[in-house]
Amino acid sequence: MRVSQLLMPTLREVPAEAEVISHQLLLRAGFIRKAAAGVYTLLPLAWRVVRKIEQIVREEMDRQGGQEIMMPIIQPAELWQESGRWDVYGPELFRLKDRHGRDFCLGPTHEEIITALIRGEINSYKQLPLLLYQMQNKYRDERRPRFGLLRGREFIMKDLYSFDRDEAGLDVSYNKMYEAYTNVFNRCGLNFRPVVADSGAIGGSGSHEFAVLADSGEVNILYCSDEECGYAANEERAEAVPPAAGEKEPLLELKKIQTPGCRTIEEICLYLKLTPQKMIKTILYQTEKETVAAMVRGDREVNEIKLYNALGCVRLEMADEKIVRDATGAQTGYMGPVGLNGIKLVADNEVMLMVNGIAGANEDDHHLANVNPDRDFKPHMVKDIRLVKAGEPCPNCGEALLEARGIEVGQIFKLRDKYSKVLGATFLDENGKAKPFVMGCYGIGVTRTMAAAVEQNHDDKGIIWPVQIAPYHVIVVPISNKDQEQVQTAEKLYQDLVAAGIETVLDDRPDRAGVKFKDADLVGYPFRITVGSKGLAEGKVEFYSRCKGEVAMVPLNNIVETVRSWLQAEG
Amino acid sequence: MRVSQLLMPTLREVPAEAEVISHQLLLRAGFIRKAAAGVYTLLPLAWRVVRKIEQIVREEMDRQGGQEIMMPIIQPAELWQESGRWDVYGPELFRLKDRHGRDFCLGPTHEEIITALIRGEINSYKQLPLLLYQMQNKYRDERRPRFGLLRGREFIMKDLYSFDRDEAGLDVSYNKMYEAYTNVFNRCGLNFRPVVADSGAIGGSGSHEFAVLADSGEVNILYCSDEECGYAANEERAEAVPPAAGEKEPLLELKKIQTPGCRTIEEICLYLKLTPQKMIKTILYQTEKETVAAMVRGDREVNEIKLYNALGCVRLEMADEKIVRDATGAQTGYMGPVGLNGIKLVADNEVMLMVNGIAGANEDDHHLANVNPDRDFKPHMVKDIRLVKAGEPCPNCGEALLEARGIEVGQIFKLRDKYSKVLGATFLDENGKAKPFVMGCYGIGVTRTMAAAVEQNHDDKGIIWPVQIAPYHVIVVPISNKDQEQVQTAEKLYQDLVAAGIETVLDDRPDRAGVKFKDADLVGYPFRITVGSKGLAEGKVEFYSRCKGEVAMVPLNNIVETVRSWLQAEG
Repeated sequence: MRVSQLLMPTLREVPAEAEVISHQLLLRAGFIRKAAAGVYTLLPLAWRVVRKIEQIVREEMDRQGGQEIMMPIIQPAELWQESGRWDVYGPELFRLKDRHGRDFCLGPTHEEIITALIRGEINSYKQLPLLLYQMQNKYRDERRPRFGLLRGREFIMKDLYSFDRDEAGLDVSYNKMYEAYTNVFNRCGLNFRPVVADSGAIGGSGSHEFAVLADSGEVNILYCSDEECGYAANEERAEAVPPAAGEKEPLLELKKIQTPGCRTIEEICLYLKLTPQKMIKTILYQTEKETVAAMVRGDREVNEIKLYNALGCVRLEMADEKIVRDATGAQTGYMGPVGLNGIKLVADNEVMLMVNGIAGANEDDHHLANVNPDRDFKPHMVKDIRLVKAGEPCPNCGEALLEARGIEVGQIFKLRDKYSKVLGATFLDENGKAKPFVMGCYGIGVTRTMAAAVEQNHDDKGIIWPVQIAPYHVIVVPISNKDQEQVQTAEKLYQDLVAAGIETVLDDRPDRAGVKFKDADLVGYPFRITVGSKGLAEGKVEFYSRCKGEVAMVPLNNIVETVRSWLQAEG
Repeated sequence: MRVSQLLMPTLREVPAEAEVISHQLLLRAGFIRKAAAGVYTLLPLAWRVVRKIEQIVREEMDRQGGQEIMMPIIQPAELWQESGRWDVYGPELFRLKDRHGRDFCLGPTHEEIITALIRGEINSYKQLPLLLYQMQNKYRDERRPRFGLLRGREFIMKDLYSFDRDEAGLDVSYNKMYEAYTNVFNRCGLNFRPVVADSGAIGGSGSHEFAVLADSGEVNILYCSDEECGYAANEERAEAVPPAAGEKEPLLELKKIQTPGCRTIEEICLYLKLTPQKMIKTILYQTEKETVAAMVRGDREVNEIKLYNALGCVRLEMADEKIVRDATGAQTGYMGPVGLNGIKLVADNEVMLMVNGIAGANEDDHHLANVNPDRDFKPHMVKDIRLVKAGEPCPNCGEALLEARGIEVGQIFKLRDKYSKVLGATFLDENGKAKPFVMGCYGIGVTRTMAAAVEQNHDDKGIIWPVQIAPYHVIVVPISNKDQEQVQTAEKLYQDLVAAGIETVLDDRPDRAGVKFKDADLVGYPFRITVGSKGLAEGKVEFYSRCKGEVAMVPLNNIVETVRSWLQAEG
């Protein structure tokens, strides 16, 4: 491809609307353009990257026995009503009516469609397992779409669904996908980590996220400092090591103390000259069923995902000032578990081992000292409900946990019989007994992977594509478009490289060399070959590796082999 | 792929809902399943065919300098309001609102999106021409979706848009696409014809349709019996050869005659002992502006598309009984042009050469004899407004026209500045003057091409895929699954063929040979290799060509070469 003909509208300025680096660079380098909020056109360079990622995904899905299909994007409401998701999915579901007034939605995911399909077509355990996948546009009407391709309303996703006869079969399918995902992100040239994840609103339990590591990532990952251990978890999910019992202090008498104006842990600790470890932090939540007081040690934070899962509720919100006043008789900051009637008390494991702690007295400007769990209050539930932080021990091996930011690009889930049961999708087992299919679902955000690759691989000049998913491998740049020797040499190099099957562009624009170099760095071609008069005098051209930053002079008769060996070394 | 693992749910019965053969066979052979009216899931075999067609299309678009992109499926209403199509497109446009109440539609076509994109990015004639294309789901909310993939509401289309500086540039782009389309359908192994087409509601003029010939086709194609001439046109568009002047009969005196109960051409001809060539057939139409009387010779039919284009109207409907009565004072069947006031008279060219014709008298049970155009009535417009039929002379060379049924699978259009003008998409020419882009648009129905291939290539046993787009090339069938020699030989053959890069399936199901043969014929694999004990005794297996119906015994050590040569001969 000649740059003069390529639709690659680069921008000098950073677009004001772009907050994150991948959004900025994909706009600036002419990869994408916005069509509406959260809706983008993928221009030729972006589409080449997407197709490369898709092909890697396809090969790895096929290798595990996946069969590619294409389900509809417009889905009839009936199936969503059958599964119960039509009413609970909320405003993120794009809904529409056809000319006859029938309800449809734009698929954010395809559990209903595929479960209904399999329900109609597969009836014997002999036809299992089945791994079916597709790659297509998905839709999610985000309240505030942003970050370019990282959080769009229309995006390309690969979704695979597994159908097995039992839990053991599901384990096999799940492990196949774990392996496939590991291969996919390795083959994309990305630094990533599979992390234990919460299975979230989609339901079921047993899930891993695949996170591309990048400082700008939106999820916090905790991983074991011992590489052999390999433990890694989304912060939401990381388990706290069960606490050891504290010192055997004698239990002192409960007493009320004055703490005027001390509403935060810091203020009380300062006032009473205590460490936060002595405090019982109490936070009030409201669910659709009840009011809940969650307790953690003063130096800890409540993990709302863990609390949500422990309560099994649908909605969980921090209680507002009014609820707090009505429930405790005091303002926020003076809440405590003692004497709190009509409220569900949920204590973190650590709280139960505290001795002579300090807690709010449920009275303005007062706290209670020498609060002892079990003696002074009895929680309705004791669970791991706190956030784990870097530096704490690994729940697997006890070594210290480290922390990294990541961008979730894939997730694998065990759905089990959540959908097959409600949709009545069953097969006959060896004994002729009808059983619901045991399912898994497995997603990769394809356009999101492209954006994550940019978040991880860039410098202040532009994108640095991993060779495996680069839109092209090599750009050939003649320094001067007026020097006939340079132009002809560049043209011949370009032809030779293309003939050798190397994806090459020729910058044949009549621009200054500086402009061409800037664009080449911005677009992020892995390799640049510069044809200049100095090198040509010796029969050489300049090789530049974008990712290594290395430069070498290479003889003209050795170009194709050199590019091949560089590509091999990188890919 | 092993058939035991392939999701290919074949059906023995013809599904009741399927009216046409491609719909029946694609359902029966396990290629597609309905998700909603006009909305289908493409199962693994269908998806393989689609991807092959897409790859052929991609290569031919790229060969002509096309650049592949991906535009959004959900399109903001603003652009459609700007082009004026939001209000006129009607109920075929799927419309929806996002969570903020903003209007969107699901793209049936992308003129607005791409014109707005180019308006923002391209500003110099030096950046032209540009050929941009995509392949994606398109949407059309048909009132009555039917015929399976031939008329769905969700379907896959390739759409390419060309941007040129002038009409000469557009001609070049148009011819490139004409060539590309010819290559695409040839490479798909289809018997097709490019035909001069009406450019329809999309606007602009200058268009060809590419029609796959099939008896079940929905369009009538007229083509020259002289292959070198090559003229072919959609029946809607086929031009009538201008008529030669009739015999120089003397003009007789106009007189009213009684024709009781004669309301059709046949009845009058029988009653008056005349040939229909003597009759002036008059039909009343209503447009949004006026009432129109269209006249053709009694043996001809009005071509409503030609009439519509001649009138330049938006709506054209045949007038109902009441309008006829109000306008003519008579019932339908007694209309005629003489004395018809306040109505626009449009005569076909042939009518003007008629001498002493018969026409309705605008009075029940009466006709006029010796009607002579110009003397007895003066049309407001004289044009070619009639249907051309097989047997008439070719407008290009005069040889007889032949007739065939076809399925439209592609269409190319000259849009010119229709969209660039209304959307204000301009570039600067050599003189720095702003000019609107001169555009073309070019579509291929990808899923429709698959269905058309089936309509053209089938027998009463099932589909007969052209090798080029067959889901797999070869199926290996051991006659008995209990004979170890057969099973092992089939397995080894399968492995060898796959290793040689030949797309092969192995029917490893424990079914009877008859079932396996039936399925193989139904699915339409181009070649079947049967492993049976009789052949094996001589070290041979049976080769069967689905399209040729030929059978040959081939030595085992010669299999891969034989398949390769058969594939080459077919492909």
